[in-house]
Amino acid sequence: MKIMKIKRPPKRVNEDIKEISTATAWSVLGSLGIKSVIMRGIFPLKPNTKMVGPAQTLYYLPLREDKEYTAEDLRKSAAMRLAEETKPGDVIVVDSGGPGYYGGMGDVMITGFAVKKAAGMVFDGVIRDSPYVRTLEMPVFCCGVQPSTTPRNMPVAADVMVRCGGVLVCPGDIVMGDDDGVIVIPKEKAEQVAELGLEREKIEKYSRRLLESGKPLNYAYPPKREWLDNPPI
Amino acid sequence: MKIMKIKRPPKRVNEDIKEISTATAWSVLGSLGIKSVIMRGIFPLKPNTKMVGPAQTLYYLPLREDKEYTAEDLRKSAAMRLAEETKPGDVIVVDSGGPGYYGGMGDVMITGFAVKKAAGMVFDGVIRDSPYVRTLEMPVFCCGVQPSTTPRNMPVAADVMVRCGGVLVCPGDIVMGDDDGVIVIPKEKAEQVAELGLEREKIEKYSRRLLESGKPLNYAYPPKREWLDNPPI
Amino acid sequence: MKIMKIKRPPKRVNEDIKEISTATAWSVLGSLGIKSVIMRGIFPLKPNTKMVGPAQTLYYLPLREDKEYTAEDLRKSAAMRLAEETKPGDVIVVDSGGPGYYGGMGDVMITGFAVKKAAGMVFDGVIRDSPYVRTLEMPVFCCGVQPSTTPRNMPVAADVMVRCGGVLVCPGDIVMGDDDGVIVIPKEKAEQVAELGLEREKIEKYSRRLLESGKPLNYAYPPKREWLDNPPI
Amino acid sequence: MKIMKIKRPPKRVNEDIKEISTATAWSVLGSLGIKSVIMRGIFPLKPNTKMVGPAQTLYYLPLREDKEYTAEDLRKSAAMRLAEETKPGDVIVVDSGGPGYYGGMGDVMITGFAVKKAAGMVFDGVIRDSPYVRTLEMPVFCCGVQPSTTPRNMPVAADVMVRCGGVLVCPGDIVMGDDDGVIVIPKEKAEQVAELGLEREKIEKYSRRLLESGKPLNYAYPPKREWLDNPPI
Amino acid sequence: MKIMKIKRPPKRVNEDIKEISTATAWSVLGSLGIKSVIMRGIFPLKPNTKMVGPAQTLYYLPLREDKEYTAEDLRKSAAMRLAEETKPGDVIVVDSGGPGYYGGMGDVMITGFAVKKAAGMVFDGVIRDSPYVRTLEMPVFCCGVQPSTTPRNMPVAADVMVRCGGVLVCPGDIVMGDDDGVIVIPKEKAEQVAELGLEREKIEKYSRRLLESGKPLNYAYPPKREWLDNPPI
Amino acid sequence: MKIMKIKRPPKRVNEDIKEISTATAWSVLGSLGIKSVIMRGIFPLKPNTKMVGPAQTLYYLPLREDKEYTAEDLRKSAAMRLAEETKPGDVIVVDSGGPGYYGGMGDVMITGFAVKKAAGMVFDGVIRDSPYVRTLEMPVFCCGVQPSTTPRNMPVAADVMVRCGGVLVCPGDIVMGDDDGVIVIPKEKAEQVAELGLEREKIEKYSRRLLESGKPLNYAYPPKREWLDNPPI
Repeated sequence: MKIMKIKRPPKRVNEDIKEISTATAWSVLGSLGIKSVIMRGIFPLKPNTKMVGPAQTLYYLPLREDKEYTAEDLRKSAAMRLAEETKPGDVIVVDSGGPGYYGGMGDVMITGFAVKKAAGMVFDGVIRDSPYVRTLEMPVFCCGVQPSTTPRNMPVAADVMVRCGGVLVCPGDIVMGDDDGVIVIPKEKAEQVAELGLEREKIEKYSRRLLESGKPLNYAYPPKREWLDNPPI
Repeated sequence: MKIMKIKRPPKRVNEDIKEISTATAWSVLGSLGIKSVIMRGIFPLKPNTKMVGPAQTLYYLPLREDKEYTAEDLRKSAAMRLAEETKPGDVIVVDSGGPGYYGGMGDVMITGFAVKKAAGMVFDGVIRDSPYVRTLEMPVFCCGVQPSTTPRNMPVAADVMVRCGGVLVCPGDIVMGDDDGVIVIPKEKAEQVAELGLEREKIEKYSRRLLESGKPLNYAYPPKREWLDNPPI
Repeated sequence: MKIMKIKRPPKRVNEDIKEISTATAWSVLGSLGIKSVIMRGIFPLKPNTKMVGPAQTLYYLPLREDKEYTAEDLRKSAAMRLAEETKPGDVIVVDSGGPGYYGGMGDVMITGFAVKKAAGMVFDGVIRDSPYVRTLEMPVFCCGVQPSTTPRNMPVAADVMVRCGGVLVCPGDIVMGDDDGVIVIPKEKAEQVAELGLEREKIEKYSRRLLESGKPLNYAYPPKREWLDNPPI
Repeated sequence: MKIMKIKRPPKRVNEDIKEISTATAWSVLGSLGIKSVIMRGIFPLKPNTKMVGPAQTLYYLPLREDKEYTAEDLRKSAAMRLAEETKPGDVIVVDSGGPGYYGGMGDVMITGFAVKKAAGMVFDGVIRDSPYVRTLEMPVFCCGVQPSTTPRNMPVAADVMVRCGGVLVCPGDIVMGDDDGVIVIPKEKAEQVAELGLEREKIEKYSRRLLESGKPLNYAYPPKREWLDNPPI
Repeated sequence: MKIMKIKRPPKRVNEDIKEISTATAWSVLGSLGIKSVIMRGIFPLKPNTKMVGPAQTLYYLPLREDKEYTAEDLRKSAAMRLAEETKPGDVIVVDSGGPGYYGGMGDVMITGFAVKKAAGMVFDGVIRDSPYVRTLEMPVFCCGVQPSTTPRNMPVAADVMVRCGGVLVCPGDIVMGDDDGVIVIPKEKAEQVAELGLEREKIEKYSRRLLESGKPLNYAYPPKREWLDNPPI
Repeated sequence: MKIMKIKRPPKRVNEDIKEISTATAWSVLGSLGIKSVIMRGIFPLKPNTKMVGPAQTLYYLPLREDKEYTAEDLRKSAAMRLAEETKPGDVIVVDSGGPGYYGGMGDVMITGFAVKKAAGMVFDGVIRDSPYVRTLEMPVFCCGVQPSTTPRNMPVAADVMVRCGGVLVCPGDIVMGDDDGVIVIPKEKAEQVAELGLEREKIEKYSRRLLESGKPLNYAYPPKREWLDNPPI
């Protein structure tokens, strides 16, 4: 199986979304009628994290002792092929079954994506080797940490639609994470979210500046769209 | 996509496994080195339930508002085709994402499998319409009940390997459930589990009869394999 | 403080809603744009339960040892006054803080509402004396049971908007419960839910009958509104 | 190690406590300043259960693969010796580590205590073989059920103080359980709880009869101690 | 509705309580018979936090789609009026329904209280915009973070008794928080807690100094009240 | 009762294990057939923690109000005696019943072990005084923090086998903890784990260096034992 090339967003769109919080992006998506985009139970390994990029997906299934799964199988697996296809700025999104599962991601595997300059990893499961992984620049979002590899998982496919943190992720969707959590922006909506999100951030900044200048809260909030044309401060 | 025909176990093997508890089958599988077979968090909708049969699998992914999913899509979906392929005695095994998810299974859909004389349904999610579903003869094992269809799921594939209750299920594996829960018997091991399981049930019955006849617990337990040849009572 | 008289729904509307499942009522409300109506974590004390009626609400706050709260205070409390105002068919809805709380409801207090022929009680907390309460005809929905009265709660108001199972309940809203759980029907929507719900139940019954007569699942489901005029069977 | 003989309560005290609910016994103990007596997370395997009797305790520790633990070790273990010492009416109380643990109790082991006419078993862990155990007359209270024996435990001592459901249980303490849960009555308080509890049950019965005869709730409740001398109905 | 002015504690009392840990204040309150004062499930957004001040309370109820709630409603709401009444050193205490709820508090709303020099906010729900909120000096204690505003809440009252983290908070009670969590000091007890708490901190400091000087643990602990007059070191 | 002297590992073994992560030690133990060694639900109070040393164990049972337990009892308790026996480098391992329990460990008690230069404390329960405890050099692993001492526990034995985080710990076993969690190395296996673990760390380092030098992931991983003799880079 060959990993298909995902279509990556224009650099400007990606950069613009980096200026937006997940909270703002969620509000914008909601105004477009898209609400089922928040990953539940997935948090950054370290605080003060920001991640934006197109999704490269990976799908794991549990191992069972009657199925042989060798080091050689792992070497030929979808996970390995995906690492080769990873481009700078990609976000690796792994469905490994949720908080109860270890999913074959420890220090070396994660480093394998970090050296490709991936923008981050979202792992719907627990990782191990967190003392080392914390030292990487690449942000990792996951359900938790533990020292063991049980229950074990095996990578069965890359470049497919997956469930992660309870939401659908398609290859190429924009995945963004910060300290509030992780959300998915459908790729067709990325440009619109970038544009509307920057506007929203701008008027919320006016709100905060109004407050800092002594205006009452109900004057400053909720912010008004008209401020884009007539700044209130 | 056409649903492939699964290979079903010989009728005698299926009948023999019905005489065995999930606890005994688990012990036998463990003695064969196979341990990752217990579904977690999945329980019978009603007590005093027993279910055994080959797995017909179904795989759901979460819906997202930017993806249109119509009644017509559902009519053409893998779930509908699987219902057509279901034979008496089959067990429908659905990966719908775990306890947080509704998976498109309410009274009518479940009835669709019950009228085919399926042996049962294992649903890794929550169902709705439980007042009606409880009236069906077909046993249903699931993570819980609720009146709503949110968060929504869509069936994307049948007849594939799935994760259910945290374990791997392949089409045709024997799935068995009782009040203790649900376990998977790899299809290649079904005959062996039937044979060893019946033996185990036999010597455990001796244990209980010894106790009832007044023998001390450490005489009666653990049971001994030699009792198969020399009954202790 | 006097308990205001709630406006109760026409008898026919109440009877019609009794013919509808919570699942169907939820679907109808959803089609009207009303979704935040499912109580989470609240289940019937006994299976095979059905309850429909207008809400009489009660609001508890935690007790603190520096506040004196005597038997006399309880006798004069909102809970006692509400019991006097309860009419046959009313549903008592109590915000007592969720699963961590005991809320001053044991066998005698609950009997106080049962003798008034209340249609049921929804209790967002744990009750005690469940062995006795199970013997009552009046259904009770709650978060769980325990033998103690800690942490303690005190009734502070009746006949007010409350939060129960995570949703808003206004006095007079229709509250319905069955084995799937409990939902709230805003009083202004009760008539519409009764009408649309009966229609929905009717076409779903056609779906099930079609299946029982051997029609394929994707013919029988989803049911079609046109069947109301042209029955498919 | 020999199991010491516990001091059992007078037959009359035991019978009297059977007339009292756990809720009432808890209230009486609370009035004596004793509050830390409710087991958390332990429920009856079947509804409509009542159990009262003196505690025979058992203490388990987790097994580790570097420690050999053979069938012979089990035969010589404290669990086996305790089964021999069990007298009709005793309640077997097992600390097996809480809901995450299997504790070496399945159908045969539990039958070993049932044939001794034990009044019940309280198991701070999960059991297996629940389909069979449900058929026994002896009530079993536990944290849950599962088909497996993992994680495994080994009995290390009987007749010692144990932690069960989060509370201290000393050999000979009276343990009582019903559908509300399980509580411990310190043995020195058993007689007092029997006496005060019967009084409490008596006046609560007056409360319910007053309600049934049409008296207002705040007349009937809270019940008054003076009713013992001057029945209100 | 006008927000009533709460009675604030003398500056010295407030300053003294700042020298005391929540653990010590809890012990002192317990010695006065007041135990139901610990908020459960509410933690500081950032470690190394300390907060003390009089409570300004806010009460939210869930929104339901049949109730219109506009930006204008929010502008006129109790939350906005409370922001105007907030004085430097006040602690904003919000009952928004617990960990499952978003409660209308994101970066701008929280900034609205921060610019008033509030001493902190205790939020019984989840907040959003945590990346920004973490940059504020004002400490925030809450149940968690997420990017969305669902399920939505609406502020219905300020300046009322509320339930927060499972305990009663009255306007003007002293609320204190540190890394151990949040507790409530009934306003009438504030002076006594300040005095006794400082004494307790003093003798515990002797305990630690004795240990550091090489004294055995059972000499140094528990600390003795007599050390206030005769320092042991 | 006198605390027996535990046998401590050779200094070199202890130092070698400090160079190994818990993840690697777990893998090595697994290859020796020893798997039940990971403590569940126990995490470091502060990130970037590393702890290795022989276990000194302590066993707590819940207090009950009918049992008197005075300051004098505590002074004579096993906890106090264990503090006296603690040697530099020891790890104090306390079974206090899991996340629901406070176990008699606050700032002074913990300081009592810290001044003895203990290598760390593993506490199967919640501690208090975390603001102070965080300032200590000695790492503390526990289930959480809170300001109160309820539910209360009492130390009943030291120097015994205990259950901690769900696994067996014998006095003298090597306990190691880092940000992934805590594991137990049976004392008889310590030397072997040190040796094999260092080898494993060495070849994993080659894996990461290969990746950093641009080699593909499936070349670098899984690492090969033969690299010990023939370094791949």
